[in-house]
Amino acid sequence: MLDPKFFDLLKEDYGISFNDKKLVERAMTHSSYDNEHRDLNIGDYERLEFLGDAVLEINISEYLFTHFPELPEGKLTRLRSDIVRTDSFARFAKQIHIDKYLQIGRGEEKQGARQRHTLLEDIFEAFNGALYLDQGNEVVEQFLTQVVYPHIASGEFSEDTDFKTHLQEKLQQAGEVDINYQVIDEEGPDHDKKFEIELVVNKKVLSKGYGYSKKHAEQMAAKRALEEL
Amino acid sequence: MLDPKFFDLLKEDYGISFNDKKLVERAMTHSSYDNEHRDLNIGDYERLEFLGDAVLEINISEYLFTHFPELPEGKLTRLRSDIVRTDSFARFAKQIHIDKYLQIGRGEEKQGARQRHTLLEDIFEAFNGALYLDQGNEVVEQFLTQVVYPHIASGEFSEDTDFKTHLQEKLQQAGEVDINYQVIDEEGPDHDKKFEIELVVNKKVLSKGYGYSKKHAEQMAAKRALEEL
Repeated sequence: MLDPKFFDLLKEDYGISFNDKKLVERAMTHSSYDNEHRDLNIGDYERLEFLGDAVLEINISEYLFTHFPELPEGKLTRLRSDIVRTDSFARFAKQIHIDKYLQIGRGEEKQGARQRHTLLEDIFEAFNGALYLDQGNEVVEQFLTQVVYPHIASGEFSEDTDFKTHLQEKLQQAGEVDINYQVIDEEGPDHDKKFEIELVVNKKVLSKGYGYSKKHAEQMAAKRALEEL
Repeated sequence: MLDPKFFDLLKEDYGISFNDKKLVERAMTHSSYDNEHRDLNIGDYERLEFLGDAVLEINISEYLFTHFPELPEGKLTRLRSDIVRTDSFARFAKQIHIDKYLQIGRGEEKQGARQRHTLLEDIFEAFNGALYLDQGNEVVEQFLTQVVYPHIASGEFSEDTDFKTHLQEKLQQAGEVDINYQVIDEEGPDHDKKFEIELVVNKKVLSKGYGYSKKHAEQMAAKRALEEL
């Protein structure tokens, strides 16, 4: 049976309470575990993965379409494929502790499947499929706003979204500059912190940025400065 | 400028009235036309195609997930890729007369781009992206229920969804049978017809089916008969 701690974690960190707990258990279960526990009648994540894959695709696409109005289609497509690939999804899966709570059979466990990126990717997709069915797309959006979008906003996936590097290159065209990012405020509990950053260029405050992480807030400050230059 | 007849057609056939007509014009415009008419400031379909691709993916995935609860993930994935490929989308594009109303430059026109399946596919995606942004996903769903889902329900894309053939095979296991599908009712205007079909096996009515086309209604009757056998 799925560890109740996973449900506590979803509630505490993301404010998510599933109506149908069997659905999220199915999303977290590999067929090898289902086969070993036929009596529990859980099923496995595979059909939910099919749905969740498309759920992630539309939400991430809409986020990129809206937040990067200046990017042409080709760059949007490259950025999307950088985000929706196995290693990124495996990382997001670990971030919400899917690796700890997923259910696999004994044989798979011995072979180290719990850390296999393709499995973590599949279950991250299945989890989002279950969330979509149980809570609707608005809750999926809120969840991704906590788990996925901060990484995109931090410029982790593409140099097109790396505003800090753009800004530095632009400022240095006019000669040596002294660029500093300073945290001036942070608020909220650990799992939902917000940072405020000041971008200081040659000892003059150029812009401010807010974000889910220091890096995110720095990118937002750099983005604003670029818009104003 | 986009032919107003296209807007009339959308209204009459699908009940769609765009709030932002510039958005659908952009979805219907190739960059070659935009380049020849810089003063009109239309833009082209490319970014909307990026979004629309994902809009179609989630809606078709949810339709398949819901309507084929018995299909495992592998078959769902194969079925989805049969539906979302270039030739199918080009066919749907023609069905709503995108080929007639899309805007391309003179050079492209001469080279026959108006009938090119990859272009028709792209614009069908862009159109759905525009519809999603302007009207929300519920209207997209209604639109696909008229334009795309009937083809899936008719079993056009996979033998897994071809209930008529399944039923025939099953019935013939017990020897020769006489299988007939008879239209017993049709209603609604031409562009929104509904058919009612009786499935008659050895002169006995086995089931009824309703659908957007005769073939769809026949498949639904066969599906019901299979469930009851």
